Amino acid sequence: MVDKAVMERIESELSKYMDSEVEFLLKIGNYILSSGGKRLRPVLVLTFSKLLKGENEDRDYPLAVALEYLHTASLLHDDVVDGADSRRGRPSANRIFGNDTVVLTGDYMYANALYLFSIYGDIDMIKNVSDSVKKMAEGQLLELKKIGDLDITYEEYFKILEGKTAVLFGSCCYVGTALGGGSQEQKESAYRYGLNIGLAFQLIDDYLDYASTEEKLGKPVCNDLREGKITYPLLSVMDSLTEEEKQLVKKVIRDLNPKKEDIEAVKSIVEQKGGMTKTIEKSRQLVNNAVSELENFPDNEYLKKLEELAKFIVEREF
Amino acid sequence: MVDKAVMERIESELSKYMDSEVEFLLKIGNYILSSGGKRLRPVLVLTFSKLLKGENEDRDYPLAVALEYLHTASLLHDDVVDGADSRRGRPSANRIFGNDTVVLTGDYMYANALYLFSIYGDIDMIKNVSDSVKKMAEGQLLELKKIGDLDITYEEYFKILEGKTAVLFGSCCYVGTALGGGSQEQKESAYRYGLNIGLAFQLIDDYLDYASTEEKLGKPVCNDLREGKITYPLLSVMDSLTEEEKQLVKKVIRDLNPKKEDIEAVKSIVEQKGGMTKTIEKSRQLVNNAVSELENFPDNEYLKKLEELAKFIVEREF
Repeated sequence: MVDKAVMERIESELSKYMDSEVEFLLKIGNYILSSGGKRLRPVLVLTFSKLLKGENEDRDYPLAVALEYLHTASLLHDDVVDGADSRRGRPSANRIFGNDTVVLTGDYMYANALYLFSIYGDIDMIKNVSDSVKKMAEGQLLELKKIGDLDITYEEYFKILEGKTAVLFGSCCYVGTALGGGSQEQKESAYRYGLNIGLAFQLIDDYLDYASTEEKLGKPVCNDLREGKITYPLLSVMDSLTEEEKQLVKKVIRDLNPKKEDIEAVKSIVEQKGGMTKTIEKSRQLVNNAVSELENFPDNEYLKKLEELAKFIVEREF
Repeated sequence: MVDKAVMERIESELSKYMDSEVEFLLKIGNYILSSGGKRLRPVLVLTFSKLLKGENEDRDYPLAVALEYLHTASLLHDDVVDGADSRRGRPSANRIFGNDTVVLTGDYMYANALYLFSIYGDIDMIKNVSDSVKKMAEGQLLELKKIGDLDITYEEYFKILEGKTAVLFGSCCYVGTALGGGSQEQKESAYRYGLNIGLAFQLIDDYLDYASTEEKLGKPVCNDLREGKITYPLLSVMDSLTEEEKQLVKKVIRDLNPKKEDIEAVKSIVEQKGGMTKTIEKSRQLVNNAVSELENFPDNEYLKKLEELAKFIVEREF
């Protein structure tokens, strides 16, 4: 969907702006950045910018890269928070370099991203981006706090989702639109496009955690449940559970080592009560919200790509 | 040295701008911010601003507070990096709330600080401040990397010191001068004042680690040495050590549990060869550098306070 030349330039700019004098930091940075990923955030920045001005300018790249740094920084801190052993099929950075180093490298990448914005961006972008970084931390803290909590609300659940993916997607689209010279209305519209596809993306993740197989997912199914996290498939049927079913859910989410048959039982309750279908429906609705925001932009090839991207998110696995 | 009313306003503004909807975050934030501290960073911001415009404006406070948040965020991440058990005589935040929570609260405070700058500051301040945050992370990473390394250079040592305290002091003075309407030359001069007193401050810390007693310091003397860190007192005499003395130092800094008599032996070598005196001299020289930067500012009561502050740093303990 994205030009090979563009992808290659993203990769080369990603290493270009990690220019610390501390060699050790470059080594860790390279390890993490070389582990790949779809570079969805830079792609969103560059596509929104092109949507408005046809071609990218040189200054689009450092900011596209800055948003990937913010994402990478949050993954690094995530790995420390989760005590993760691996990421994208390789040992996680904290396993190789230690938690201390990884926390500091994340801090460096956060600061470097903001520094790039102070050179190539403007104060309005920084306001939007730093607000997103606040919300990312808030969302993750809320998620930690809500582990094992049967009474999580929709509002709390969506706040967690926003922090995980959606606000940073939103900022990418906002910054791209600003780079393209868009109006305030267009910037906000782009932000909502990103926010909505981010939420849909995360909902599908939560769906797949129930629906997929261990082989496809690369981790045990119902992993969220095992970790004590209630996600949309279960949340959406919570009101229709019997008292007995509620007790079962409670037992599973509060147990550090829940039994396999209890997990399976919750999984089939969710399926029977329609939690899976509801999750897909909600995700489609969010994608539709996202696509409708695109009406505020010129109709060209880049708009088509953004439409495809939004739809791809819900259709990716089933 | 600082007005009681000013100190009280700093305290109240510190809690005012921690306004997350996530209550859990407020709780942790309050725990950390209520542990006190001299609020040296806000004081520097406010004093430089007053030096130029006589009185503080309302918008000086959120930025003074933002710089304290950056400091607090770095302390939080430091505690995780060091696995610290206590800070300022209370259990450290990571002991009470866990590493995961503390990492994320630090991230929130970093982001909140930059967000405040996007509202009350300008792009030039953000460039200066985000550059300092980069250097803080770089300095700490370099310090980790240099543990147990006999061949640490002066350049590396001072880069570590800069990251620990000096660059953020520099930014406080830079931001305060910008708030006061100072020229580019004055902002840079203020930055160098802060950088130099920060370096002097840290040198005296390193001096006290050799010279003080366990009671005064609240931790064992020669703690840096125990942790494998070579600081100025030892670094300044390294060239005059015999081969045998070098081997002893090597043994001590590479041993996770060095013997008390070996520590004492290194300590007396440092004293005999003049390492303590050299550290004080270097610190005085840096304070003089700092004071000479003040020539670029109007001569009033606030200038006097900044002179006193600089001198107090070297004279504080002996």
